[in-house]
Amino acid sequence: MTMIATVLGAGYMGSAITFPLIDAGLEVRLWGTWLDDDIIEQCRHGDHPKLKKRLPVKVRLFDSGELEMAVADADIVFSAVTSEGFVAVLERYLAIGNGNTPAQRSNMYETPVLCALTKGFVRFDGRVCRISEAAEEIYREKCGILKGIQWVSVGGPVKAVELSHKVQTATVYASAFRGARDIVPLFATEYYKICTSEDVCGVELSSALKNVYSIAVGICDGMYRACCPGLYHNFKALVFNQALREMALVVEKRGGDRETVFDLAGVGDLYVTSASGRNGRFGELVGKGVPPGEAYQSMKSRGEFAEGYNTLKMGYEFARDLGIEAVRSLPLFEALYDIVFRGTGCADTMERIVRS
Amino acid sequence: MTMIATVLGAGYMGSAITFPLIDAGLEVRLWGTWLDDDIIEQCRHGDHPKLKKRLPVKVRLFDSGELEMAVADADIVFSAVTSEGFVAVLERYLAIGNGNTPAQRSNMYETPVLCALTKGFVRFDGRVCRISEAAEEIYREKCGILKGIQWVSVGGPVKAVELSHKVQTATVYASAFRGARDIVPLFATEYYKICTSEDVCGVELSSALKNVYSIAVGICDGMYRACCPGLYHNFKALVFNQALREMALVVEKRGGDRETVFDLAGVGDLYVTSASGRNGRFGELVGKGVPPGEAYQSMKSRGEFAEGYNTLKMGYEFARDLGIEAVRSLPLFEALYDIVFRGTGCADTMERIVRS
Repeated sequence: MTMIATVLGAGYMGSAITFPLIDAGLEVRLWGTWLDDDIIEQCRHGDHPKLKKRLPVKVRLFDSGELEMAVADADIVFSAVTSEGFVAVLERYLAIGNGNTPAQRSNMYETPVLCALTKGFVRFDGRVCRISEAAEEIYREKCGILKGIQWVSVGGPVKAVELSHKVQTATVYASAFRGARDIVPLFATEYYKICTSEDVCGVELSSALKNVYSIAVGICDGMYRACCPGLYHNFKALVFNQALREMALVVEKRGGDRETVFDLAGVGDLYVTSASGRNGRFGELVGKGVPPGEAYQSMKSRGEFAEGYNTLKMGYEFARDLGIEAVRSLPLFEALYDIVFRGTGCADTMERIVRS
Repeated sequence: MTMIATVLGAGYMGSAITFPLIDAGLEVRLWGTWLDDDIIEQCRHGDHPKLKKRLPVKVRLFDSGELEMAVADADIVFSAVTSEGFVAVLERYLAIGNGNTPAQRSNMYETPVLCALTKGFVRFDGRVCRISEAAEEIYREKCGILKGIQWVSVGGPVKAVELSHKVQTATVYASAFRGARDIVPLFATEYYKICTSEDVCGVELSSALKNVYSIAVGICDGMYRACCPGLYHNFKALVFNQALREMALVVEKRGGDRETVFDLAGVGDLYVTSASGRNGRFGELVGKGVPPGEAYQSMKSRGEFAEGYNTLKMGYEFARDLGIEAVRSLPLFEALYDIVFRGTGCADTMERIVRS
């Protein structure tokens, strides 16, 4: 029996993940949110407008009004929307069951496996929390029981465009459920290597925080790449290293495994995002002297959404709620917050971390 | 009383370290080996020929015949020669004491502190070993006792040219001796941040192995940067991440702390060396299809010495002696060895690690 995977969200990553899923032999459905109707329409006749590439022909496309059809009997559901859209989409998905658990809708497994490609924090019930924490609350509210959720957090250095071109890629799927960990290796292909982990907290926090810290690496590029290309690698490496130290501190404080930070979801993803990602580019603009709010808006108006901007804002609350005294324990995070939201100058603020 | 630091070796790093040492208020002497006499001579009248920059005027210069004067009463001795020259220089240094411990020659401390900036493996007594292991043996032979050595291994992301331009830099000094760990922070300046560690083994192995693994990152650049610049970051991050996994495995197996790999001496130094270093450039040539031996020689003939080439060869023996079954536990290391010394093709060999 063919496994059915439904992907919620037809942006970069949601569309890119259909390539390995098809190649792994799954039945794949791609549902576009109310913001994606144009994308779905274009994909019916030509290239995906963001990936600039046709999706695999076997992918079945669903527009925003067809959610119920898209998830019917799905064994695996991928959330591939942004963190900003996550709660709204999950609530809409769960509303379909009319209060029943989604369990009853899977053909093959007791409950459908929910794989979150979404990275970041969400604001829920008046506080900033990890995505899976919000999801658990929502499940409890909508379904009455927690049993319906087989949560998997997906992390690692995966640029969507490259995945769609079948570049050799490694990723990590983290779940507390052994059943889920047994299923996810079935999505692997020759170019899509899947590692599994039990550390949902570590993978989620690493995935969120690397978006923040890649801004810092980008700021180094912005400040120095043009003026002194051969003379800032020591400083950039110091910043990269400090980012990992701080990520490990937050993960450990939150009950995750600090080793997770030093593998695909942390160092791997920070490496790729810093070198070639929207958050790195946002940081680069800031490092060049563009006011942060302006840099963010101008990128957004071109469809380039630097998620780290909001993750930085929410992460600041998250860290404060953890009781980590940011100034002392997370000097780079604090420096970033000062630069992006308090308007302090890049050079002085970044160099503070050398003295920390 | 002013602390006296003698630096052995007037190449890139030996000369660069004189900048923070002078700024930290030490009396600094720079001794050139028998290969460095030209450098010392040029420094007397103008720029250091490699750094393209004048050394601080207060640095006292000594040519190869003046070793005894250079180390007289030194409190700190830096070894800044290559791993290939390390044993010969250390033996010559110790021969000065005529079998007495160098202890008697320090003004301020019981024994002079020996800080090794040298990175790599050495062949000693018929086997491949860490630099400090060779040093201990040599001390025991020459001085009869081990007490004379207060060993410090220095690591971290420090490009010499950048240090000489006083770019913000962080480094780690590892020593088993509390006394030495108490002294080294005195070398810190506003731009030279010093962290201390007790994990000599981890810092030494990280420093050696990052030269090997940065070749792998360079190979990715060579294979793909020109042909598909936006389509190999996932693979490069996978390789970078695998490098860290393997470094941690070797360090742990050898009795070091795997966390050391995930800080300045490991990930920090791998990051900087991959982005901008001779080993990365060597890898890039290999990735472009230049036969490895030819790439190594042509760089060497231009004075660009890719140390990772020999470290790869010796590291292979080192790993084998550890009993790590390389093919299974260190697939990236094995792939590198195959490419560089067995002439296998880059693409097929590198992609093996995805399937490992």
